[in-house]
Amino acid sequence: MAAGPSANAATRSDRTAPLESPIQPLLRDIYAKFLDSRDGAVATYIPELSGVDPEQFGIALVTADGHLYEVGQTRAPFTIQSISKPLVYGLVLQDHGRDAVLERIGVEPSGEAFNEIRFDDDRNRPFNAMVNTGAIAASSLIRGAEAAERVTRMLDLFRALSGEAVTIDESVYRSELATGHRNRAIAYLELNNGMIVGDVDTHLDLYYRQCSILTSAASLAFIAATLANGGVHPRTGERALATKHVRDVLSVMTTCGMYDFAGEWELRIGLPAKSGVGGGIMAVLPGQLGIGVFSPRLDAHGNSHRGIRVCEELSDRLHLHLLADRGRARSAIRRSYRGSDIRSKRRRSQAARLLLDRLGTEIAVVELQGNLFFANTEQALRSVLELAEVRCLVLALGQVTAIDAVAAGLLRDLVDRLVTAGRMVRLAAVPASARKALAIGPAFYEADVTSALEACEDALLQAESEAAVGAASHLEDFEIVEELSPAELEILRGRLSRRAFRAGETIITEGSEADSLYFLLEGTVDVCVARVGEPGVTRLAAIDAGNVFGEVALLGKPPRTADVTAITAATVLELTAAAFAALSHKHPGIGAKLVIGVARSLSVRLRRANAAIQALEG
Amino acid sequence: MAAGPSANAATRSDRTAPLESPIQPLLRDIYAKFLDSRDGAVATYIPELSGVDPEQFGIALVTADGHLYEVGQTRAPFTIQSISKPLVYGLVLQDHGRDAVLERIGVEPSGEAFNEIRFDDDRNRPFNAMVNTGAIAASSLIRGAEAAERVTRMLDLFRALSGEAVTIDESVYRSELATGHRNRAIAYLELNNGMIVGDVDTHLDLYYRQCSILTSAASLAFIAATLANGGVHPRTGERALATKHVRDVLSVMTTCGMYDFAGEWELRIGLPAKSGVGGGIMAVLPGQLGIGVFSPRLDAHGNSHRGIRVCEELSDRLHLHLLADRGRARSAIRRSYRGSDIRSKRRRSQAARLLLDRLGTEIAVVELQGNLFFANTEQALRSVLELAEVRCLVLALGQVTAIDAVAAGLLRDLVDRLVTAGRMVRLAAVPASARKALAIGPAFYEADVTSALEACEDALLQAESEAAVGAASHLEDFEIVEELSPAELEILRGRLSRRAFRAGETIITEGSEADSLYFLLEGTVDVCVARVGEPGVTRLAAIDAGNVFGEVALLGKPPRTADVTAITAATVLELTAAAFAALSHKHPGIGAKLVIGVARSLSVRLRRANAAIQALEG
Repeated sequence: MAAGPSANAATRSDRTAPLESPIQPLLRDIYAKFLDSRDGAVATYIPELSGVDPEQFGIALVTADGHLYEVGQTRAPFTIQSISKPLVYGLVLQDHGRDAVLERIGVEPSGEAFNEIRFDDDRNRPFNAMVNTGAIAASSLIRGAEAAERVTRMLDLFRALSGEAVTIDESVYRSELATGHRNRAIAYLELNNGMIVGDVDTHLDLYYRQCSILTSAASLAFIAATLANGGVHPRTGERALATKHVRDVLSVMTTCGMYDFAGEWELRIGLPAKSGVGGGIMAVLPGQLGIGVFSPRLDAHGNSHRGIRVCEELSDRLHLHLLADRGRARSAIRRSYRGSDIRSKRRRSQAARLLLDRLGTEIAVVELQGNLFFANTEQALRSVLELAEVRCLVLALGQVTAIDAVAAGLLRDLVDRLVTAGRMVRLAAVPASARKALAIGPAFYEADVTSALEACEDALLQAESEAAVGAASHLEDFEIVEELSPAELEILRGRLSRRAFRAGETIITEGSEADSLYFLLEGTVDVCVARVGEPGVTRLAAIDAGNVFGEVALLGKPPRTADVTAITAATVLELTAAAFAALSHKHPGIGAKLVIGVARSLSVRLRRANAAIQALEG
Repeated sequence: MAAGPSANAATRSDRTAPLESPIQPLLRDIYAKFLDSRDGAVATYIPELSGVDPEQFGIALVTADGHLYEVGQTRAPFTIQSISKPLVYGLVLQDHGRDAVLERIGVEPSGEAFNEIRFDDDRNRPFNAMVNTGAIAASSLIRGAEAAERVTRMLDLFRALSGEAVTIDESVYRSELATGHRNRAIAYLELNNGMIVGDVDTHLDLYYRQCSILTSAASLAFIAATLANGGVHPRTGERALATKHVRDVLSVMTTCGMYDFAGEWELRIGLPAKSGVGGGIMAVLPGQLGIGVFSPRLDAHGNSHRGIRVCEELSDRLHLHLLADRGRARSAIRRSYRGSDIRSKRRRSQAARLLLDRLGTEIAVVELQGNLFFANTEQALRSVLELAEVRCLVLALGQVTAIDAVAAGLLRDLVDRLVTAGRMVRLAAVPASARKALAIGPAFYEADVTSALEACEDALLQAESEAAVGAASHLEDFEIVEELSPAELEILRGRLSRRAFRAGETIITEGSEADSLYFLLEGTVDVCVARVGEPGVTRLAAIDAGNVFGEVALLGKPPRTADVTAITAATVLELTAAAFAALSHKHPGIGAKLVIGVARSLSVRLRRANAAIQALEG
């Protein structure tokens, strides 16, 4: 670790060196640790496998969003062999549905080696699709009008899973075809038992092709990442398998993926995985990452000897075990605050403001975040249900990245219960995908939190006093003139000109010179800015009758920083900068009191803004 | 779903009805669905089990933070039987360590029934601790000077796991002791094989006691929640098992917990689980929740028939399958912004402010949140490494709830790399537990984000220009007097009194009448408030020389809202409200210009505060 003083490095000038991720050296370290390992022996049951360079070694890790970390010979090709089994199993689940496939192939570990010829006699089916008996049965189930179509569909699956073109090692394929007597025996036994139907040669041809697909450590890591990402390739965005079938594939990998080493693998590494006699191992951490390792020497179980050790080291050093303690799932609540902490961006009349000073605590805003599922939504619900005294509840979903059907159902039910119990509810900033999942009536949605707050404030004000909302104001009601005597007020009135604007009409244009202050007597205006690179305009505030706007006109003549537009018909009293200058010259006391009024209002708004910042920082 | 208009329910007055959680009716629904199920048969191998009421039925779910949902006979007692096996396995892992236990008991599924007498002959050990052979071997390994101590230790484990007093069903215990001939045979075979050592009767007595412990659906759900919570009971806070042993226990439950139904359980339900012939099933979703179900009728595998169906329904309806798609792990970044969006709470001199208008983008604040582990920290790191042009980086950890050793290592490495590359780094608001895990030198820590921002701003200003920071100011340098002519400035100067404060001296007291504005010529002052219910004071802002404070004194005499204290020796020019009134009376123009200056400064600060609100809302 760098010593203390280096913490202040901002004064150094060398900022050109690219920064390497700390993950990369960590992988290199694991690679170096096992580089000299020579344990195990290369598979020899066909000559093509026995001829591979046993020293080859590569480690690849791909995150669920598609970032690749790699070290060693991660692009060196080798045949995928048994790692094809769970993937083809996924394809036939997709072709036939889970129930039909379960009729044909079990999901129980056999506790035996991968090439054992033994069946689940009670159900007349192979034990599972990860051993040869079940894998051959699975290949026999790939749909297609003829052999060529079935091969094409199989190859297309591997293309979609890996995100790259797929080729077959023809010499391995031909060698397997010529020498795979044991698998031929299995297929004929299954045909005899009625476990498979159709032409044994066609099924075996397909099976040997799938086993002879060329892959690499990097490619396996991408396939694993596609499974980790719910079946969608993280870079191409293509869906290779349906989410529910991915779950089934990972389940069978968990209990049966590593042959008679499955239990110890689960204990030590704890990731759904599959190995192949070509020397590859593929492991999946759902939602997080995929791993591909290549090292051809095998142990007694037929798993890559070095590959197992690398996976255990990775699992240990990165805490990848699926059952490792990652702490409690946290509530989906990002933050929550009351309507008294943060107001809507509507600047209301003084009467309404005073009412809301009292009523603001009746509004609660609860912001949710992340991927919503049962455990984090249940916790959020509990917190919301504890807000029993609140009359208005805003659920803000702007930071929600995904929402499953369970979480959507719980939220829908919550809204229903709150409404039945007499609460007002608004859902703010809900992404379109979440809206679809929620299936809640459109009346509940608001574009953003401030609109939802505004709706809640409106409802509370209306319930309290119809008169407080939207009423026309008189000059004497404005806070900034409250220090003026009646006589001074009349003098001011003489300097003002009454103007009316239609709904939609622009009163102030951004960039123009600030040359008038406006007393808004009737109607509502919007304060908007156009932002560079963003379409449309952003509404900064809405202003109700009883407020002034454009007050910087009295403080010099800086350019206007926003447009102000009437959103209803609006009536104003305009005080031009020239009229103010003349007034101040003739009646300095009136000018000073007006500026003091402006400054006071700014001071109050600044204090409220600072309180909002504190509430948002928490 | 409620109809649209009901969204506006805030006007209704009935808010007394307590709100029920949507989880409760969901459990009731599942309970009702299976209430009439009569499939399966009660265990009969001892008379005490065959005598239980087969209709009993209870479902309990406990969240990882200890909230219990329950329906049916969740408090009805029954014997725990085989559900004790993984728990005692955890105890012996704790007693001997994993390697020693693996020498004695394997972790591979046997693919056979629970009472099968078959061993892993290659390793001369039982296949796993979830079948009787391995469970008896596990019980034989419980440490203790004598039989009584071993029983006490075993019972204490169950007390800690469940959080309640443990009792044994004496009649079941005596019946098992009298009729458990098969288990006696197993124990003697193991003794003969050298798989266990010591007195067979003592081991069997212990084993029968552990199987005869009385539990309930609720109690099982609490035990499961303790395992889900990394071994700490969520209500009592007591650690029952070490986290690493919990991982091993859950691993073995995954591959071996449901006997020869383990594969299909993993496929359909996908939770580490254990069943017992007493009719109980316990299932764990790590980090999230525990489930306990009680229904005495068993299926052919010896698992509760109704219990399996309830668990499948729960897993389906709540999406609990451990391998179900819960979306990608999200980056641990809560939000990030630049020092130009949000400034520290130090109000700097005009020269410094102008410099920071340009330099603020050189500071990046990255806020992290939640439980930090590999996948979400790796993503956060990638985002940070992309901020290559930034000179100062603040990592804010105030919302980090836990940090594992991997995430801590990655962050430590990141800081090291950033510093080596010439960046200034600050860690803000780091919880004490995270500080320990991070093991980064104290020079990197700041109490909060604003202090870290301040340190970064200081460093940038110092690098740019020594003169800009902390220099004394002259009256003519203050923004609020910039409209005054030299002659007017001299008139103003005549109304000011110079005052000096020692470090620590209070200049303004909260609640007092605002009767002076201060021009801060030299030194720095803090603006602080005491908050109800919070110890000490909260610093709202620090103010450097070149700024005024107490300006509301010119806008009326509202009470002061905060204390202002000199934190260095400070020199001010004081303008009392009385002096200002006299000045305004004699020279109205000067008074007006001063108020305009104050209003302008408030207007600029309000605009900056609104920009900060926008940055924080994102």
